[in-house]
Amino acid sequence: MSKERIYMDWNATAPLLAEARDAFLSALDLTGNPSSVHREGRAVRALVENARRDVAALCGAEPSSVVFTSGATEAANMVLTPDFRMGRTPLRIGKLYVSAIEHPAVREGGRFQREDVIEVPVTKAGVIDCVALERSLSAHDRPSGLPMVAVMLANNETGIVQPVAEVAAIVRAHGGLLVVDAVQAAGRVPLSFGALGADFLIISSHKIGGPKGAGALLVRGEIMMPAPLVRGGGQEKGHRSGTENAPALAGFAAAARAASSDIEGRMNAIAALRDRLEAEMRLTAPDVVIHGADVARIANTTFFTLPGLKAETGQIAFDLEGVALSAGSACSSGRVGQSHVLTAMRYDHRQGALRISIGVTTTQAEIERCAHVFAKVAARRRGAGEAA
Amino acid sequence: MSKERIYMDWNATAPLLAEARDAFLSALDLTGNPSSVHREGRAVRALVENARRDVAALCGAEPSSVVFTSGATEAANMVLTPDFRMGRTPLRIGKLYVSAIEHPAVREGGRFQREDVIEVPVTKAGVIDCVALERSLSAHDRPSGLPMVAVMLANNETGIVQPVAEVAAIVRAHGGLLVVDAVQAAGRVPLSFGALGADFLIISSHKIGGPKGAGALLVRGEIMMPAPLVRGGGQEKGHRSGTENAPALAGFAAAARAASSDIEGRMNAIAALRDRLEAEMRLTAPDVVIHGADVARIANTTFFTLPGLKAETGQIAFDLEGVALSAGSACSSGRVGQSHVLTAMRYDHRQGALRISIGVTTTQAEIERCAHVFAKVAARRRGAGEAA
Repeated sequence: MSKERIYMDWNATAPLLAEARDAFLSALDLTGNPSSVHREGRAVRALVENARRDVAALCGAEPSSVVFTSGATEAANMVLTPDFRMGRTPLRIGKLYVSAIEHPAVREGGRFQREDVIEVPVTKAGVIDCVALERSLSAHDRPSGLPMVAVMLANNETGIVQPVAEVAAIVRAHGGLLVVDAVQAAGRVPLSFGALGADFLIISSHKIGGPKGAGALLVRGEIMMPAPLVRGGGQEKGHRSGTENAPALAGFAAAARAASSDIEGRMNAIAALRDRLEAEMRLTAPDVVIHGADVARIANTTFFTLPGLKAETGQIAFDLEGVALSAGSACSSGRVGQSHVLTAMRYDHRQGALRISIGVTTTQAEIERCAHVFAKVAARRRGAGEAA
Repeated sequence: MSKERIYMDWNATAPLLAEARDAFLSALDLTGNPSSVHREGRAVRALVENARRDVAALCGAEPSSVVFTSGATEAANMVLTPDFRMGRTPLRIGKLYVSAIEHPAVREGGRFQREDVIEVPVTKAGVIDCVALERSLSAHDRPSGLPMVAVMLANNETGIVQPVAEVAAIVRAHGGLLVVDAVQAAGRVPLSFGALGADFLIISSHKIGGPKGAGALLVRGEIMMPAPLVRGGGQEKGHRSGTENAPALAGFAAAARAASSDIEGRMNAIAALRDRLEAEMRLTAPDVVIHGADVARIANTTFFTLPGLKAETGQIAFDLEGVALSAGSACSSGRVGQSHVLTAMRYDHRQGALRISIGVTTTQAEIERCAHVFAKVAARRRGAGEAA
């Protein structure tokens, strides 16, 4: 118990990067409302606009395409609405098509009525079923409004990368709008807003090593815009009111700069650690199931099921041994149930799965200790005499 | 120019209190998602729940009545909606009645259609016209749904305290819901959620010396609840989704504790500074108009018009002399126009008004320098030879 804790739940929230912390703290000491025109206000305004440039750069986008929000969940709720505007002309979105593995912030459908949210299945491999998407969009009732499609770039539980470019081509062919949740992909795969073919992109600060309390919705060209979710003061060109959280945005920007640099190098190093861990896991427990191991995944995530070990029990066992990992995603207020992602993949294990997610400060030693704890936990599970 | 800056725009944003900064920084170093069940997650969860207790205490309310948001603007948008629930039964709000001097975050009406937002006039003295409110509510079309009334406790521009208890009695008599924006009142007048008679109370962290990025909606008993504005992860008992900004909440809580202690002593000291300043102002420019000077105001605010001086010009002049103050409120992204508050008070000066708002760290010396700058600015205005 006196052992140092090992944090392996980066997909829930990443440790604050040193550079993000520094930027955050410097900004904290500037007093001023960015909407004020006095010198203090203008200094804070400059912070906000510099942050916009850095966050845009992470996404391969123009600064003018960034609308800052309090986080990714708010950004999702902002863009997922039937009520759009093309300039000043109202534009109706008829239905929202979401992949069955979207994060709850997207899956709940924002401001759409529940009956207007259509789920698109994924394959057993955990990848969106493009044939099914094509079929759904072909059946779309155009007079009800445009179709909107929401597909994440990398899944938060499995880490599986989704074929967004292919999805974008289908959506475009049907004249729809595409929303891409890039929360887990940002900083882990190179992002080019233009090349992705998305109309809207969602990212979060605290998932890339920035402070909590900041996120962004990236918009293509500001031509088609959702009705504002938070109105009043007219900030963010009227798209999102409320005093901008300038210190958090400065920290977000510093994290975005870090996340933009040498993605390949950082991810190769992380993938090596992850692969090492998975090899050890397979060695100690050959029956371990690593979800998504056969398809493209982001480098930092291992989502696994150990037959005979319930996810909740496993999580507690790891926690007691000093390893913080998660049973599914952490976005559901501590609720632990069957993962909707595994269900969507037709993986019918009641016992669920555990997620290990690591990051830039994860060390070889931590990986070794995690593998050791895994072996202990695997040996202890019910009827697992042979697995130890 | 080399002089130290004097910050007199506390109503736009207050300097971060030392104790809020400390609490914020300690929390910043805890990595964990409050929804995660591992040790790290539980530590962050504890922070959030402790913050809830302190913020509730500032408002004289129970911790269970606090729903945390990203700020007051979001809280306003959350509660101002026609779509309520009484338990699981939908409850319709027919119209929203707002005082003509509400902050834009309230005045815009949140999720109400524009035609369902009715403005209630204020008197020339800047106080809500209760006779007009009574008249409006008597004419309310009950079958369309319940009436909702939104009245602020203290105005952000003038500082004038509104007769909320009287308003509450009227609203109750008409079976309506009362929303009170206590953003500027919090920490400046003692708050008792129960005694106020409000159903919902809105407060902000950065206006009481906490960090930006946090606010709260206080709800009476969770019986009647607005449809969530931000949905998805189920945080805040489903009322507000998205990872809680735990560090900001810890800072908010520390600021709330400071704001709860010895309000009378702090406000007496601030009122003495403000009165001293206003006396100096009247001495150097007897024609100065101090708005709301004859009615109850919070202790820290002086909203004034200097005949012959346009507000924008005045603000720049003060800024160049090292004094940060504001022309009206700062919530409108730098837009400077006729203050809707002055318009509502039938004060028809095109030149607008300037707001000086001070706080606990404002010093006697700063007041003296501000008075000196005021005298300079007053002497320089057009045709003001006699005023110097």
